[in-house]
Amino acid sequence: MNKEYKLDFIRNHMNIINNISMFFPVAPISQEKLIFLLKNKVITSKYLNRTKEDIEAEIDKYSVNSSKINQRALTTQIKKFDELMAVPEICDEIIYGLLERIYQGKKQPNHIEYVTSTEHSIPTSLQRFLAYKGWNNTYINNFFDRGCAGALPAIHNALNLPYATDIFCAEIFSPYVDLIAQNLAQKPNPQLVIEGTLFSDASVLCSTIPQKNFKKAKSNGLELLAYNEIIIPDTHKGIHFRSSTDKLNLSVLPYVPAKIKEYVLDFTKELCKKANLDFEKEKNSFVYAVHPGGPKILTNIQEEFNLPLSYFQNSIDLLYNYGNFSSPTCPVLLKNILENPAIKKGQKILAIAAGPGITINGLVLNKI
Amino acid sequence: MNKEYKLDFIRNHMNIINNISMFFPVAPISQEKLIFLLKNKVITSKYLNRTKEDIEAEIDKYSVNSSKINQRALTTQIKKFDELMAVPEICDEIIYGLLERIYQGKKQPNHIEYVTSTEHSIPTSLQRFLAYKGWNNTYINNFFDRGCAGALPAIHNALNLPYATDIFCAEIFSPYVDLIAQNLAQKPNPQLVIEGTLFSDASVLCSTIPQKNFKKAKSNGLELLAYNEIIIPDTHKGIHFRSSTDKLNLSVLPYVPAKIKEYVLDFTKELCKKANLDFEKEKNSFVYAVHPGGPKILTNIQEEFNLPLSYFQNSIDLLYNYGNFSSPTCPVLLKNILENPAIKKGQKILAIAAGPGITINGLVLNKI
Repeated sequence: MNKEYKLDFIRNHMNIINNISMFFPVAPISQEKLIFLLKNKVITSKYLNRTKEDIEAEIDKYSVNSSKINQRALTTQIKKFDELMAVPEICDEIIYGLLERIYQGKKQPNHIEYVTSTEHSIPTSLQRFLAYKGWNNTYINNFFDRGCAGALPAIHNALNLPYATDIFCAEIFSPYVDLIAQNLAQKPNPQLVIEGTLFSDASVLCSTIPQKNFKKAKSNGLELLAYNEIIIPDTHKGIHFRSSTDKLNLSVLPYVPAKIKEYVLDFTKELCKKANLDFEKEKNSFVYAVHPGGPKILTNIQEEFNLPLSYFQNSIDLLYNYGNFSSPTCPVLLKNILENPAIKKGQKILAIAAGPGITINGLVLNKI
Repeated sequence: MNKEYKLDFIRNHMNIINNISMFFPVAPISQEKLIFLLKNKVITSKYLNRTKEDIEAEIDKYSVNSSKINQRALTTQIKKFDELMAVPEICDEIIYGLLERIYQGKKQPNHIEYVTSTEHSIPTSLQRFLAYKGWNNTYINNFFDRGCAGALPAIHNALNLPYATDIFCAEIFSPYVDLIAQNLAQKPNPQLVIEGTLFSDASVLCSTIPQKNFKKAKSNGLELLAYNEIIIPDTHKGIHFRSSTDKLNLSVLPYVPAKIKEYVLDFTKELCKKANLDFEKEKNSFVYAVHPGGPKILTNIQEEFNLPLSYFQNSIDLLYNYGNFSSPTCPVLLKNILENPAIKKGQKILAIAAGPGITINGLVLNKI
């Protein structure tokens, strides 16, 4: 089998993304209100052993402010459902409720890949939901728990499977905001302020169908042309998740945006080469779906690519409107591309995200 | 494309398992010594607030005794590496060391699927190891964290990928035994005794190659004929993992073996049907690789299948020699089948495992 034949052979076998739907647990609140709540919660915290002024100054200095994020979806709005519930149980309840809405009136899926950084109970709320529905023979991958890389590895995996698959991405950060506020009351920690004011709640469902069924369906689709993934050397402490029932234990060190900047251009050239494309020649023709991990990551990638910021406007807008909601973020950018009639068939899409490792992950997709 | 053609088309595209290697962190210790250490550790625990006799009686009553498990591999032998290290850090260190041994002198893999129930840091020790090796463009799936289902879903996924893949399964339960002993000193809990005396440390590396490369390789291989997975209704509390830095938080309720018994026969018939096989007609001709989750699960499955216990002797031996080491267990059974010259090409293999959900997962494989 020669190389080209093999590529056709594999491509013919692959899945196509043909539908992406976004679901919020609740209506968004403004970033200003969040920051107010964060300060207020700290001040009234029973754990308070810093001065009110200290904490407020720290939040003012390090929070992601309303010029970068205007509003966010936060389910619990810094108020735990029930003081007896642990954070994983709160996440479980919210995600279960989302699944009920998402699959209402839908037929049973063959397979679901579940991507999350914030739910960490096994069995997952997804498994509990499927059992409740009586959908006992839906296959499930509980995927990338606490290391989502913008869901790109899961999308790559799903597009390679030989049957229709749903990819469900859900993140519920807001129960952790309450804990972050309590922690802030105990010791100074700029990192906690950033985490508390950057991440947001959301979920997304991507559906894929086999190539041959897609041809009949006549809807828009996204096909996979190439995938690439690297681990950046000496960065394993850069983004770190550690499990706990009562803490987020997420750490994102200040050097992360700089490390991504250092490696992202070579990474992207390699990614494009895998799709038989020359990045430098084609970079103006791509539509970009860059994970807005934070404001700095976006401007660093833009500088390395030497492109006007307008190429990343979709990512900037997403961050501004909703905050960083981790795994669903890239799928939401892809949703806009899939559904935008101004983006024609044959358009190549470059999706880039980072995750713990630090990894950089990328997809080249083709709108068909 | 008609159904048969499609099956050939997909099968031609799939991977073949062509090598499985087993690695232990340390030499095994006897089950009797483990039970002695468990009692002894409890008795000297600074947390002790039960009587020595109470705790000893509970351990004697509920421990998986040396008639069922003769010896186990336990890395830390109820002694934390360093009192300053959290359990996830200890697991990370041990798994990193295993990876160094496993990949010594080996060439860089394309892709690794990492299955574990006991490591729960992100990035994983695997990501850290790959970065250290400079293997920056190996793709990784951090898969089924704390819900391994005997690694069967990961094997199914790996065999469907369009490129060579390693599946790395590693479980490090022994640091938790120390914590279990401490918890036993505080309150009566038969469940903790069973967990502390059932689970063991081990790791395994399964390698796959694409079908077309396998034909050239002329080694033994295992090809996928069918996969099945169900969620048993009303069992989401049956097997439960919840993350924590200082506890295993694994709960296995007493009804688990009975629920598996109730569903396993219908499940297996359905699985065989997917491979165009009639279970009742063929059941005497299969080689079985049943995950020895515990002694009771094996005898329940044997009763439902109405087969002599000798059909499950490989699983019984594995449990007796090493204990239940979760995700590597089924791959080790498959290793024995792959390498056993008495098991001829064309032999059909039935692998069955259970996981949180409760799910039952199964593979039909063909030795080629």
